[in-house]
Amino acid sequence: MSGSTFGRVFTVTTWGESHGEAIGVVVDGCPSGLELDERDIQKFLDRRKPGQSKYATPRNEGDKVKILSGVFEGYTTGTPISMMVENTSQHSKDYDELKDVYRPGHADICYDMKYGIRDHRGGGRSSGRETIGRVAAGAVAIKLLNDIGIDICAYVTQIGEIGIDFANFDREEISRNPLCMPDKEAAEKAGKYLDKLIEEKDSSGALVECVVTGVPAGLGEPVFDKLDARLAQAVMSIGGVKGVEIGDGFGVVTSRGSENNDEFFMEDGNIVKKTNHAGGILGGISDGSAILLRAAFKPTPSIFRKQSTINNDLEEVEIEIKGRHDPIIAPRAVVVVESMVALTIMDMLQLKR
Amino acid sequence: MSGSTFGRVFTVTTWGESHGEAIGVVVDGCPSGLELDERDIQKFLDRRKPGQSKYATPRNEGDKVKILSGVFEGYTTGTPISMMVENTSQHSKDYDELKDVYRPGHADICYDMKYGIRDHRGGGRSSGRETIGRVAAGAVAIKLLNDIGIDICAYVTQIGEIGIDFANFDREEISRNPLCMPDKEAAEKAGKYLDKLIEEKDSSGALVECVVTGVPAGLGEPVFDKLDARLAQAVMSIGGVKGVEIGDGFGVVTSRGSENNDEFFMEDGNIVKKTNHAGGILGGISDGSAILLRAAFKPTPSIFRKQSTINNDLEEVEIEIKGRHDPIIAPRAVVVVESMVALTIMDMLQLKR
Amino acid sequence: MSGSTFGRVFTVTTWGESHGEAIGVVVDGCPSGLELDERDIQKFLDRRKPGQSKYATPRNEGDKVKILSGVFEGYTTGTPISMMVENTSQHSKDYDELKDVYRPGHADICYDMKYGIRDHRGGGRSSGRETIGRVAAGAVAIKLLNDIGIDICAYVTQIGEIGIDFANFDREEISRNPLCMPDKEAAEKAGKYLDKLIEEKDSSGALVECVVTGVPAGLGEPVFDKLDARLAQAVMSIGGVKGVEIGDGFGVVTSRGSENNDEFFMEDGNIVKKTNHAGGILGGISDGSAILLRAAFKPTPSIFRKQSTINNDLEEVEIEIKGRHDPIIAPRAVVVVESMVALTIMDMLQLKR
Amino acid sequence: MSGSTFGRVFTVTTWGESHGEAIGVVVDGCPSGLELDERDIQKFLDRRKPGQSKYATPRNEGDKVKILSGVFEGYTTGTPISMMVENTSQHSKDYDELKDVYRPGHADICYDMKYGIRDHRGGGRSSGRETIGRVAAGAVAIKLLNDIGIDICAYVTQIGEIGIDFANFDREEISRNPLCMPDKEAAEKAGKYLDKLIEEKDSSGALVECVVTGVPAGLGEPVFDKLDARLAQAVMSIGGVKGVEIGDGFGVVTSRGSENNDEFFMEDGNIVKKTNHAGGILGGISDGSAILLRAAFKPTPSIFRKQSTINNDLEEVEIEIKGRHDPIIAPRAVVVVESMVALTIMDMLQLKR
Repeated sequence: MSGSTFGRVFTVTTWGESHGEAIGVVVDGCPSGLELDERDIQKFLDRRKPGQSKYATPRNEGDKVKILSGVFEGYTTGTPISMMVENTSQHSKDYDELKDVYRPGHADICYDMKYGIRDHRGGGRSSGRETIGRVAAGAVAIKLLNDIGIDICAYVTQIGEIGIDFANFDREEISRNPLCMPDKEAAEKAGKYLDKLIEEKDSSGALVECVVTGVPAGLGEPVFDKLDARLAQAVMSIGGVKGVEIGDGFGVVTSRGSENNDEFFMEDGNIVKKTNHAGGILGGISDGSAILLRAAFKPTPSIFRKQSTINNDLEEVEIEIKGRHDPIIAPRAVVVVESMVALTIMDMLQLKR
Repeated sequence: MSGSTFGRVFTVTTWGESHGEAIGVVVDGCPSGLELDERDIQKFLDRRKPGQSKYATPRNEGDKVKILSGVFEGYTTGTPISMMVENTSQHSKDYDELKDVYRPGHADICYDMKYGIRDHRGGGRSSGRETIGRVAAGAVAIKLLNDIGIDICAYVTQIGEIGIDFANFDREEISRNPLCMPDKEAAEKAGKYLDKLIEEKDSSGALVECVVTGVPAGLGEPVFDKLDARLAQAVMSIGGVKGVEIGDGFGVVTSRGSENNDEFFMEDGNIVKKTNHAGGILGGISDGSAILLRAAFKPTPSIFRKQSTINNDLEEVEIEIKGRHDPIIAPRAVVVVESMVALTIMDMLQLKR
Repeated sequence: MSGSTFGRVFTVTTWGESHGEAIGVVVDGCPSGLELDERDIQKFLDRRKPGQSKYATPRNEGDKVKILSGVFEGYTTGTPISMMVENTSQHSKDYDELKDVYRPGHADICYDMKYGIRDHRGGGRSSGRETIGRVAAGAVAIKLLNDIGIDICAYVTQIGEIGIDFANFDREEISRNPLCMPDKEAAEKAGKYLDKLIEEKDSSGALVECVVTGVPAGLGEPVFDKLDARLAQAVMSIGGVKGVEIGDGFGVVTSRGSENNDEFFMEDGNIVKKTNHAGGILGGISDGSAILLRAAFKPTPSIFRKQSTINNDLEEVEIEIKGRHDPIIAPRAVVVVESMVALTIMDMLQLKR
Repeated sequence: MSGSTFGRVFTVTTWGESHGEAIGVVVDGCPSGLELDERDIQKFLDRRKPGQSKYATPRNEGDKVKILSGVFEGYTTGTPISMMVENTSQHSKDYDELKDVYRPGHADICYDMKYGIRDHRGGGRSSGRETIGRVAAGAVAIKLLNDIGIDICAYVTQIGEIGIDFANFDREEISRNPLCMPDKEAAEKAGKYLDKLIEEKDSSGALVECVVTGVPAGLGEPVFDKLDARLAQAVMSIGGVKGVEIGDGFGVVTSRGSENNDEFFMEDGNIVKKTNHAGGILGGISDGSAILLRAAFKPTPSIFRKQSTINNDLEEVEIEIKGRHDPIIAPRAVVVVESMVALTIMDMLQLKR
C-alpha cells in the first residue's frame, strides 16, 4: 500500500490536495444497514472547519460533504462509501512565493526529495486539509461504534505550560471554547497565551488526550498488531504529532511494578481494576476498562516571522510566510484524533472473531 | 493478518510460546545474495539472552538459532528464511499455580477473555521470549542496512529517576554494563537503585532511546504510512512499551514554532538543519538527518510481593509470583528496539521506488 | 480489505453504483513525473462506452472522466490520483420492477443474502459500470507500461462456435469492428450470429485473449503470488468471467511433457524458447517471452425472454427483463481485460526488487 | 508480501526448499479451541507423500509432521501454529549436473534471472515439496470447515484423452486407486496410458475437479476479492496449473443466456436452482449451491528423454534428467487443490461479517 489506505477490513482510502479540485475518501467494509446521510458526516467536518475563531485560520470554506456511493435510500449497502468535499476558497496566489523555497518544519523539502515534484499550493497533500477524508470516514466509524455503546472523546489538556485542572473537568465545556479544553479557566489562560504568541508571530504546541469507553475486553491482536500498536500508528500518522502514549505513558519510566500494576477485584459480578495505569490495554489486548491515550502536537510550523532556509536552487535565503495559518494545531485536530481512534477500533472489531 | 506478521515487502512472521517446543520466525522478501550464517544471528540473540547479570532472569537457555531455509552455500537465495530456537530450559512447574490466577499487569486475563484458553506456562505467547523471532529477523535486516551505510543504535537513558548525562555519552559503554547505558556512572547508580528494588521485591520502568543514521531522505509514505507512524507501531508492539516519541517528542507541547522549526542551511554542498527537533522526519518522510526515537518501558509486572487479584472462578485471591523474572525490562529490550526499527526501515526501503 | 482495493504497491480502489451519483477510482502508488491528462484516460473509457453499436446497450452516457487529485501542472505527483465519472443517463424507472424479483444468472440474490439490502437500480455495485474505475486506473498503468516497452493487447477470439482464423490476424481490425475481433471475416459471421440471438431474445458467451509483450524475465513472486496466480485473480474478478488460462491452458490436459516443454536456445545472444506452451510464465515467474492469457465470458444474463425465478417473498414468479442490455459481454470487456492485466503487471513491477 | 503468505485473516506462510533442512508452515489466525494433534495433519500429508505407487516418485521420505506451537493440551490456542517436516531422504547428488543447466519447462532459469542465485538441488523452493506446507495448513482449515458442515472433495477426471464417466462416479474409489479417479475403469485405462508414457520416458497432463458443499450463501467480496477470483489465485498458484474454471467454465463460450442462466425455485422452503452452470458463485458471491472448480495440470516437465536446452554460460547443450520424478503431477496434487480451496474459503469466512 502506498500509504493512503488505512485498515484491513474496515478500510479507508483518502485522496486530495489542499488546492486541488476536491478532497475525499472511500470507506470500504462498512456494514450494511447503517442509517447515514450527509448531516451525520457534516457535523464532524464542521468541528475541524477553519474560520471559527481567532485561533483558527480564517480560510472560510463551506467544506460541504457529498456522499457519492454506498448509501441507498438512507442506509449503507455494504459497498464502498465515497465522500467528497470540493475545494472552494483557494488563495493559491498566497503560495506562489513558496514555490521555490522550503518552509522550515514543513514536509515541502521531503516531498521534493522523494518525488522530484510537488504541488506547492498550501502544502498540497501534506496540508492539514488532508484530514478531511479522515474525519469524514471517522464520522461513519463513530456512528457505528456509538450504536454498540462505545464512546470516544478527545480534548486538549495542555497548551504550552498551561494544563487543565482535572478537578474542573467538564465535558460540555470542550465544545464551548475554541481551544477544546474541558476546563473553562484553563482555556481562558491558554487563550491569553496564544494571543501573546500571535502578536509575537509565533505558535504553540499542545497535548491532546482521548478516552474511549465501552470497548469490550479481548480487542487487539497479540504481537505486531497489538491494539496500542495500531493506535500508535493511527495517531502518529496525524500531521504534527511527535509522540503517543497509552495509560501512564512516559510516566512509567519513574514508576515501580508495585505502583504500576493494576490489581483486579470483583464489583457487582464484574472484573474491575483498582487503578488504570495500563490505559485499558494489557499485552496489546483491551482489558475492558477505559482506553486512555495522549498525543503531543508540535507548534504550527508556519509562523509569520522571518526564518532562515534554502530554496530549491540550494541557496540560503530568508522566508516570511504569508497566507492563513492557525497559531496552534491541536484544537482543530481533536476531531481528527477521535476519528483515527475510531477507525482503528472499528477495524479491529471487524477483525475480531 | 492476525498480528504475527509485520511488514509489506520485507515481511516477518513470528511464532512460538515461552514453554512450547520452540520459538521461531520466517523472514520473507529478503534480497538474494546476502552472506549470512547462524553466527550473524546468534550475536544479536546473545544480547537478549537471559542469565547474563543479576538484573536479568537466571533462566539459562542456550538460545541457539538454526537457519532452516532460504540460505544456500552461505548466501540468501531470496526465498523465505526460517529460523528456530528450541526451548530447552523450561521450568514449567514454576507456573503451575498461575494456571488459574491472573497476574496483575499481565496479559493473562486478556488472553483468556479473547481466546477462552491460554498456555499459562511462562506467559505463553505473551512472554518476552516471543521477541526471539523479532531479534533473529532484525539481525538479518540490520546486516542489510549496515551494508548500505545505515547504523542503528539503542540504549537505556533513564531508569527510575536516574538519567544519563549526555556529556558522558560513550557508545562502547553500552555493551560493557549490564544495563546498556552509555554512561558508566549512571549505570552504576541505576544498578544500586535496582539492587534496592530487588530487595524490596519490586521492579523499575526505564527509557530507551534509538538513533538511526545514514537513512536517505525521502523514506516514508505520506498520510497513514508515515515513517514515524510505522515506527510507532513497530516499537509500541514490543511488550511493556507504553509510549513512543520522535525527536523532541512530548517536549513539543511546551515549545514554540520559532524554537521547534529546524532551519535549513548548506554545508559542503549538502542540505543540513541547524537543529533536529523533528528527529529526522518531516511530514512522515525522512529528511536525511539522524532519526531519533524514544520508548517508555513499564516496570516488569512480575514482582515477588504479595498482590491482590482474582482467579478464573472470579474469586478475589492473593498471589505471590515465583519463577525467574528480571527486575527491569529495558536492558534486554534494547536489541528488540533496534530490531523493530531495522525491520521497519528495511521494509520501507523495499517499498520505496 | 473488503474487496474494492487491488494491488499491494500500485493500488487501485474503486467505488460507485450503476445508478448512484457517480463512479470512480483512486490510484495510489503511481510514480511521480508521468505526463497525464484526462484525454489519456478518456480514450480508454471510450472503448468500453455503451451505445456504440447494436451489440452494445444504447445507454448513451458521456462517461466523461474528471481527474480530481494527484496531477499538478500536467504531471503526476506521486500522491493518489482520484478520478470520477458522473452518472448522467439513468433510466432508474426501468429497474423498478426488479426491486423485488431476482434475475437468474445475476448477483441480485447474493447481495440480498450477504447484505440484507441492495441498490436494485441497474445492478448497483454489481453492474458492468463498476469497470469504469478499473479502466480509468488501467489507462494510467498502461501509459506507464508503454513507456517502458510493455505492450498489452486483448481481443475476442470466439463468439459461440465462431472462432477467428489466426492466419487472418490483423491487429488494426480489432478497433474497426464492433466485436473487437482481429479477423474481419469472423467478426462478420459472429455479427450475424448475434443478430439472430437478439431476435431470439438471447445472448452469447465469448472467448477473450490477451497478449503481453516486453515483460522482463523475473517478474512474479514464487509460491502464492505467482504472476499467473495474480493474473488469474485479476481477470477472474471481472464480472462474467468463468475461466482463466495461461499459455496452452486447458490444452495441457491432453498434452505430454515432450510436447509441452519449451526448449531453450540462443538467438542473437538472447535466450529464446522454441515454443511458448507455457505462455511466458514458468514457476510463476515471467521468462521473458510473450505472456498469453485467455478468459471465458459467460453470455449476458439479462435476456428479454420470460424466465422462471423467485421474488424476495420467496414466491415463484416469472420475469421479463426490460432496460438496456448488450447481447454479449466480451467486446466491451476487452479493454477491461487489458486494464486488469496492466494493473497486475504494474503492481508486480513495483514490488520487484 | 513476498509471495509466501496467503490469506488476510486466516493466514498461511510457507517456507523451505526441497533439499534444505526442513519444510514448514506457520498458520496464523486459527480460532482457538479446535482439537488438533499431529495425526490430523499427518493423514493429509500421507495423501501427497511420494513413493506410494509406480506413478509417484520413489523418494521415500517419512514426511512426519511436528507441531511446534499454537496447540496446548490438545487444543489450538489462537496463536500461530508452526508445523515442520524434516527433509530426510535427500539424494542431492542426483541434482549435481543440473547445477549449471536449465531444465525445459522448469522454473530454474527464472529463479536465476530473478535472484541471480538458486538452490538447484531438486528444484529448491520451486519443488513440489513446497506444497507440504500448504497441505499441513489445509488440514487445519479442512478440520475447521468440516466442523461447520463444509465438505471439500477433489479428484482427477481426465488424464490425457481418458476421462471418467460421471455415471460411474464413486467417491470411495478416489482413495482406492493410485490416480485418484472416482471411476475404477477409467483409472485402469489411464494407468495403462501412463505405463506406456513411462516406457516412452514421457509424462501426461490431467484435469482435477473440486466440489465444495455446505458453503453458506453470501461468501465472497464484490469486485476484486470475488470468491471465484480468490479461488482462481489460490489454485493457479499450485505448481503446474495452467488453467482454472468455475462451473461451466470455458463451456460458457459456446453457451447462450437462455441455457446458462440458472433459474430459481423453492423446494421445502429453500431457494434452489434448477441447474448449476454458475458453479455456486454469482457476482463473486456464493449462492448456497455446490461450488464447482476445475484445474488443468500440465505434464511433469522432468522427463527422462534427451532435451535441448542451454546452460548458465548460455551455451546450447543437451540434457538428460535423472532423479525421481512422477510421470504425472495431478494425483498427488489432488490434496493440494483441496487444501488451497479450504484455505481460501476459511479465510473468506473469517472476513465475512
